[in-house]
Amino acid sequence: MKRISLLGATGSIGIQTLDVIREHPEEFKLVSMSAGRNMELCRQIINEFQPELVSVQEKDDAERLKPEFPSVKIVYGLEGLEETAVFPKADVLVNAVLGSVGLKPTLEAIRSGKTIAIANKETLVTAGHIVMEEARRHNVAILPVDSEHSAIFQALQGEKEKNIERLILTASGGSFRDRTREELHGVTKSDALNHPNWSMGAKITIDSATMMNKGLEVIEAHWLFSLPYDDISVLLHRESIIHSMVEFHDTSIIAQLGTPDMKVPIQYALTYPDRLPFVSGTRLNLAEIGKLHFKEMDLERFRCLKFAYDAGRAGGTMPAVMNAANEAAVAAFLEDRITFLQIEELIERAMENHSIIETPGLETIQQVDRETRNFVNSLV
Amino acid sequence: MKRISLLGATGSIGIQTLDVIREHPEEFKLVSMSAGRNMELCRQIINEFQPELVSVQEKDDAERLKPEFPSVKIVYGLEGLEETAVFPKADVLVNAVLGSVGLKPTLEAIRSGKTIAIANKETLVTAGHIVMEEARRHNVAILPVDSEHSAIFQALQGEKEKNIERLILTASGGSFRDRTREELHGVTKSDALNHPNWSMGAKITIDSATMMNKGLEVIEAHWLFSLPYDDISVLLHRESIIHSMVEFHDTSIIAQLGTPDMKVPIQYALTYPDRLPFVSGTRLNLAEIGKLHFKEMDLERFRCLKFAYDAGRAGGTMPAVMNAANEAAVAAFLEDRITFLQIEELIERAMENHSIIETPGLETIQQVDRETRNFVNSLV
Repeated sequence: MKRISLLGATGSIGIQTLDVIREHPEEFKLVSMSAGRNMELCRQIINEFQPELVSVQEKDDAERLKPEFPSVKIVYGLEGLEETAVFPKADVLVNAVLGSVGLKPTLEAIRSGKTIAIANKETLVTAGHIVMEEARRHNVAILPVDSEHSAIFQALQGEKEKNIERLILTASGGSFRDRTREELHGVTKSDALNHPNWSMGAKITIDSATMMNKGLEVIEAHWLFSLPYDDISVLLHRESIIHSMVEFHDTSIIAQLGTPDMKVPIQYALTYPDRLPFVSGTRLNLAEIGKLHFKEMDLERFRCLKFAYDAGRAGGTMPAVMNAANEAAVAAFLEDRITFLQIEELIERAMENHSIIETPGLETIQQVDRETRNFVNSLV
Repeated sequence: MKRISLLGATGSIGIQTLDVIREHPEEFKLVSMSAGRNMELCRQIINEFQPELVSVQEKDDAERLKPEFPSVKIVYGLEGLEETAVFPKADVLVNAVLGSVGLKPTLEAIRSGKTIAIANKETLVTAGHIVMEEARRHNVAILPVDSEHSAIFQALQGEKEKNIERLILTASGGSFRDRTREELHGVTKSDALNHPNWSMGAKITIDSATMMNKGLEVIEAHWLFSLPYDDISVLLHRESIIHSMVEFHDTSIIAQLGTPDMKVPIQYALTYPDRLPFVSGTRLNLAEIGKLHFKEMDLERFRCLKFAYDAGRAGGTMPAVMNAANEAAVAAFLEDRITFLQIEELIERAMENHSIIETPGLETIQQVDRETRNFVNSLV
């Protein structure tokens, strides 16, 4: 029985993590969780899964929940999030919160010796050097939840790092993959939110359309698998069936395939190094699909991916700047305050405006994050 | 340094095994070998690789070689083949001989504790139950050399057998994949020998055209990976880029991909569980290939594959009968004595004519093999 602490239980990955826990009551138990502001869903989850500790975003919500669930400890805010992350009865922390708020709880959980299943991109993108170093020091496994990194992680089982030639991350291309740059001028929010393969949250769907999502994944892969950026490539693969691949020095490539269902990588992170049946899952039928397509990635067409390689190679605080600029810009786009192509422009300007600080600590990263958001918002 | 004994050095797999040994002189040394009747190539190999023991098919050839290579022990015939298989200085036996003659040397090598890299299909097809039992008893690894089985073997690294849902062997479809059954009536030997993807020997190229090659692979996979026939499926994939796949209970599929080059699986069998660079290899460029195609396998169109499932499920001596009938029929086709479609007919008649003997010993298998060849030849 693995006891799970789930940060971001009411989000897209959180809900699917609960689906996995529900399918395997003999194997998994939710002992603690955090939720944002969706109190209706939060109440449902508490009723169904009976966690011992629940953290919510707002103090008011916490006060309202307390009398409703007298046997549950209710906490709130950033402090509550950290308390949930280090809850002593949990073996595994599933970090599925959105944004840079996920970083500190992850570090605390590592220090308390928990296995980390990481779905929060910002943690590795902005502070990969700190997180991986702490994980090494505390001998803690960082297990990827993202389908691409899970694919690479699965492909690497039984293999040696020294034999890796390169990682090949696949990219569906997002909502606008069949449009030229010129055709991006008039696109609307609802166009961008219409992802062809995956059903995901709004932020990540926009990030897929700009290809920033793949950029963040490249930086995550750099940290998760300790590989230089030259050994991480991206391939357009519109069907999202091959979730990613590893090429070895002997030219052999190991790939992981499946239907686009996040529950598979989530479950793998929870069952690793074993697997369990996924009873409600849809099996891949390649004969029915008939064809898989592959295409070279164009860094001029998808400029955010180029920014990510640039930021990753520059290192230091630059990935944190890129990430914060992207978060602020996407938020502005979702509020109809800027156009789609202005997302790229704002990120580029924020990166140009920044002077890198090498090997930043947590506070520097958080400060740079705030400054970048202010800078971007001042331009909107 | 792995010391290698190579049976069938002058054949297609043998020559490519020597290419791999040549590329890695620090890692591999050819210590013993067998050749058929190609004495010119045999002499070249002896001169280049300086093995200590050489077996040839004919006594006359052996007598001629002896004075030319006074420091090499020259033997011949079936006895010579067995002496080569158990050569004490060898760690690994690469069995790349064609036909059922490969069976007894494999068993002797297993009993002498050598790791077996198996390219000889007949060994597992006709006597899988004996070979795998002996391998277990002597704690000897049977490593596949075939690209499909190597792909499955690679995909299974770091995985547990209990989690396998099924194996998916890919099949290019062979020379006649785009023809209907009706269009097979007039086909010639040279049509059949024109394989779209792989450059291989004549027998295996015909077996690809009839799909018997895939049938033999299904039976081999059954023994190599201890799985029932219901858990082994075949998928048409014309590009031969995905060499095969393993599906797990959690719906995840692990596949091995690469350019169609037999040197990759040969080298993997020799370096396992490690990998080595394959310097002269061609890297897979999926963007350049653009599309991979998949199609349901049609057991009515490719009747030999159906025969193989039938023979495998029937068990006992039936796979040996099917294999012997196929060898005799393909030989007759290559001698222009029968038409392409008569290959299937002859196999079917031989199987219908046979009464199964359960768990046969080596001698029974060899007797059934002889009887079946005689039966088929009596019909030609």
